[in-house]
Amino acid sequence: MANFKGHALPGTFFFLFGFWWSLKYPLQHSWKRRQHGTRQSLPLFFNRIDLIEGVAKIFFAFVGIMAEQFVPDGPHAHLYNGAWVKLMNWQHSTMYLFYGISGIADVLSMSSLPVPAGLDRLGLSLALFVEGFLFYFHIHSRPPLDQHIHSLLLVAIFAGAASTMLEGFVRHSDLLEVFRCTLAILQGTWFYQIGFVLYPLSGQEWNEEDHGNIMFITMCYCWHYAVALLIVGVNYSTVWWITNWYRGRQRTDLEFSLRKTSHLDSKSQKALLQESDEE
Amino acid sequence: MANFKGHALPGTFFFLFGFWWSLKYPLQHSWKRRQHGTRQSLPLFFNRIDLIEGVAKIFFAFVGIMAEQFVPDGPHAHLYNGAWVKLMNWQHSTMYLFYGISGIADVLSMSSLPVPAGLDRLGLSLALFVEGFLFYFHIHSRPPLDQHIHSLLLVAIFAGAASTMLEGFVRHSDLLEVFRCTLAILQGTWFYQIGFVLYPLSGQEWNEEDHGNIMFITMCYCWHYAVALLIVGVNYSTVWWITNWYRGRQRTDLEFSLRKTSHLDSKSQKALLQESDEE
Amino acid sequence: MANFKGHALPGTFFFLFGFWWSLKYPLQHSWKRRQHGTRQSLPLFFNRIDLIEGVAKIFFAFVGIMAEQFVPDGPHAHLYNGAWVKLMNWQHSTMYLFYGISGIADVLSMSSLPVPAGLDRLGLSLALFVEGFLFYFHIHSRPPLDQHIHSLLLVAIFAGAASTMLEGFVRHSDLLEVFRCTLAILQGTWFYQIGFVLYPLSGQEWNEEDHGNIMFITMCYCWHYAVALLIVGVNYSTVWWITNWYRGRQRTDLEFSLRKTSHLDSKSQKALLQESDEE
Amino acid sequence: MANFKGHALPGTFFFLFGFWWSLKYPLQHSWKRRQHGTRQSLPLFFNRIDLIEGVAKIFFAFVGIMAEQFVPDGPHAHLYNGAWVKLMNWQHSTMYLFYGISGIADVLSMSSLPVPAGLDRLGLSLALFVEGFLFYFHIHSRPPLDQHIHSLLLVAIFAGAASTMLEGFVRHSDLLEVFRCTLAILQGTWFYQIGFVLYPLSGQEWNEEDHGNIMFITMCYCWHYAVALLIVGVNYSTVWWITNWYRGRQRTDLEFSLRKTSHLDSKSQKALLQESDEE
Repeated sequence: MANFKGHALPGTFFFLFGFWWSLKYPLQHSWKRRQHGTRQSLPLFFNRIDLIEGVAKIFFAFVGIMAEQFVPDGPHAHLYNGAWVKLMNWQHSTMYLFYGISGIADVLSMSSLPVPAGLDRLGLSLALFVEGFLFYFHIHSRPPLDQHIHSLLLVAIFAGAASTMLEGFVRHSDLLEVFRCTLAILQGTWFYQIGFVLYPLSGQEWNEEDHGNIMFITMCYCWHYAVALLIVGVNYSTVWWITNWYRGRQRTDLEFSLRKTSHLDSKSQKALLQESDEE
Repeated sequence: MANFKGHALPGTFFFLFGFWWSLKYPLQHSWKRRQHGTRQSLPLFFNRIDLIEGVAKIFFAFVGIMAEQFVPDGPHAHLYNGAWVKLMNWQHSTMYLFYGISGIADVLSMSSLPVPAGLDRLGLSLALFVEGFLFYFHIHSRPPLDQHIHSLLLVAIFAGAASTMLEGFVRHSDLLEVFRCTLAILQGTWFYQIGFVLYPLSGQEWNEEDHGNIMFITMCYCWHYAVALLIVGVNYSTVWWITNWYRGRQRTDLEFSLRKTSHLDSKSQKALLQESDEE
Repeated sequence: MANFKGHALPGTFFFLFGFWWSLKYPLQHSWKRRQHGTRQSLPLFFNRIDLIEGVAKIFFAFVGIMAEQFVPDGPHAHLYNGAWVKLMNWQHSTMYLFYGISGIADVLSMSSLPVPAGLDRLGLSLALFVEGFLFYFHIHSRPPLDQHIHSLLLVAIFAGAASTMLEGFVRHSDLLEVFRCTLAILQGTWFYQIGFVLYPLSGQEWNEEDHGNIMFITMCYCWHYAVALLIVGVNYSTVWWITNWYRGRQRTDLEFSLRKTSHLDSKSQKALLQESDEE
Repeated sequence: MANFKGHALPGTFFFLFGFWWSLKYPLQHSWKRRQHGTRQSLPLFFNRIDLIEGVAKIFFAFVGIMAEQFVPDGPHAHLYNGAWVKLMNWQHSTMYLFYGISGIADVLSMSSLPVPAGLDRLGLSLALFVEGFLFYFHIHSRPPLDQHIHSLLLVAIFAGAASTMLEGFVRHSDLLEVFRCTLAILQGTWFYQIGFVLYPLSGQEWNEEDHGNIMFITMCYCWHYAVALLIVGVNYSTVWWITNWYRGRQRTDLEFSLRKTSHLDSKSQKALLQESDEE
């Protein structure tokens, strides 16, 4: 898949996952923080949401493996016929396989089975590590710019693997969740950048030996990260603002209905408030 | 031992240890989780099991050292006679020595002596580190494929050393135990893979300079790890399923006998259940 | 900014921040330790102090970016006109941008918004990392002494990034705060040292190929750190001594006024003292 | 000090410190575990012991700096006279300086001043890091064996720096104390090994290019560590055995005297025993 589309596809996936996480986590936190105010539609949604995420990962990984194998110029599940057949496609299939395993780990963690806490994070960390590991041995003997732009991708991948591994031990750390969101978005947008640089749409090739280009790309990587931080910041703020506004309206409704009912249940209200404080 | 057997032997050991651990840990956890249901044969078994593991390690390490020293073409405990004698055998003896020390640390940790908590894990971590350390200076100036296939082994060894060291501080982490099991199995199967590649049974040598071979081997390493994850997953599930089924049968028996006996001791039953919940 | 001033400017900033922190932290700790003795002017000051620090960072970052862009020989916000325009200035602007982001993270952490705990430290850590990251690809293909003296700067930068990242998880560790202070001062004084070596005021150039010079510079780096330790030590001691003396005088006044008032409130006094002990 | 004595001297110091620590820590632990059995000579000893260690470090560091500066062929405090004067001696002085700073940190930690917890460990970690840092830039452009044997020293130094830094955060970890003891002894004996190899007493020079020698030295390093583990193990066991025997005798005396006195104070005895259990 050495073309623009081949980089845009994984880029889109990583971007979407990072974007989605940066909506999911503030929503979960906001829900946890004030879950006793109202008791409505969301909880069921939350119980299923991580499960759906896991199933989606398994599904996409399966589709990805099939696509890599059975595209017209793919290996069609042949590995060796005198020489290795289409190793690039096999490597990409392997990457997808580990994202599929990560999906299975997610589903297991959501199930009622006594799996070790943090198995989902270990799974994701391994998938990222395998991705970085295969890329690392993938980029030797290429022109300097190509090599540099892929090395920068490795920074995002391995930082993501390390931070996700850490999440397996420091459970439910808000900070690590934010960090993971930004790194996923960075990886997504950087895949696009690689596509734009190596297979320019305008047709005008970049000089892959020019030191100025390498310096610009390094700096550009930092700008991508700044944008990723901005996106995550905006998403967190938006979710916080919407849930606050929604809750404000709910509370007004609740107060209205409470005035109509008797004040006898005020004791249970207090107990609930205490519970939410203790958290 | 530069032949197929020389790689199959340590491979078998690592594989067996990884396999055994992936049965032992879920059994221990399952036992801990419901240890008040029945009071039968297992506990004595568990008290002795880690001790036996340690003694086995010491025994195998001793046998290994003796074998390396006194095989017909071994150094027979001679180190220097104008030139160094059979340094390869001495290096392997040194590796076995540290696995022996790890066994001693296991035994000490099981004893009633006030040894530091986590000494057994520190011992295993050091044994893995020494193995990796000696291999690292072992693989210079070899053909690219040979060097690459051994470097990949180092990834499993040092990851194991790091994760086991971590276990010395994060005591009884399920996640790290699973991780260690998979890395031990990976190391085991990879030793076999090295043997198959460098000393092919079919007699047809691999081209040790071909870049395609190196790319395939890198990917193959990931597949080994996927298989290791599968094996550990199957073992954990099987143990969980068997203990559940066994316990189900026991509980039926228990309920039957309880109906026959008086209900006076129901209070103590409840106390026991509470204890098991609190855990 | 490849001249003495261009190194003195960031050096001054890092030195001042390190110096300021080595006064702020002992003051905060001293206040926390004995905050119930008197209830006076300081708390308001403390509530605002981190906020002002954040705003100052944003302001200086903004000024820095503007200066880098609009100095007479700057890029004036042009990035590409056939070739890359003044990439050095763009790189410095990028570094300032991330210090600005760190300032925003500080302000958000001080606000009443539910931002993740430790966001301010993550922000600072990222700013340091980006600085080191850009420097790292900045120093290739220079004479040995120039390269070495900048690599030593990287040690301070990355150690700072790692220790600040750790502070995001180990909250309010005195030890890490002391460590960060010393590393900031080290970075500050080392920027000056780079300026003195590469653009000597005396006009007499250093021989950039001489091995003796490289050895001296390495050792000199350790001396800078010893001085940084000394400065932080003196600042901590001074603050401790002054707050103790101040508090001693306050206590005398308090005792004097207490003798005049009745002894009835002695019970509440004890309660307060107990509270301060429990901390 | 490029001779045998120049390596034996620091070797002796590191060995003695490692040996001493491997006696001190089990003694402290044994004391803590059963400190209520008898109330005699030891506590005063323990209060002073770390203080004396710190003062000794400062004293030896001062002597070391003086010796390096004012030996007949030393720099006599001259640094530059057209060329750098005796940089080797200055580097060694710098190393001693940081061990002196570590001694000051020890003394401060023992004082009643509110220094950050773990400052003594940070100080020692920095001293080890500076030692490793200076050695690292010290060993370039030497023959392979010389370079290799010093790199192995760096393994012990940096492992010691990392583990001591960790001790600053994981306070009073038995495991890290044991680890530090073994690494200090390893460093000590390895300094001797370097002396024996580079300045052989027999006068017969080692071939510094021979690969066999390098392989042997790597393995020999592991043997040194095995011996260090043995020494620490023996010391811990001996201290444990002696304190147990001593305490056994004390308890017999105590029981004898208790029988003579009335049994009225048995209640307070029990309270004490409970306290010691809770620890």
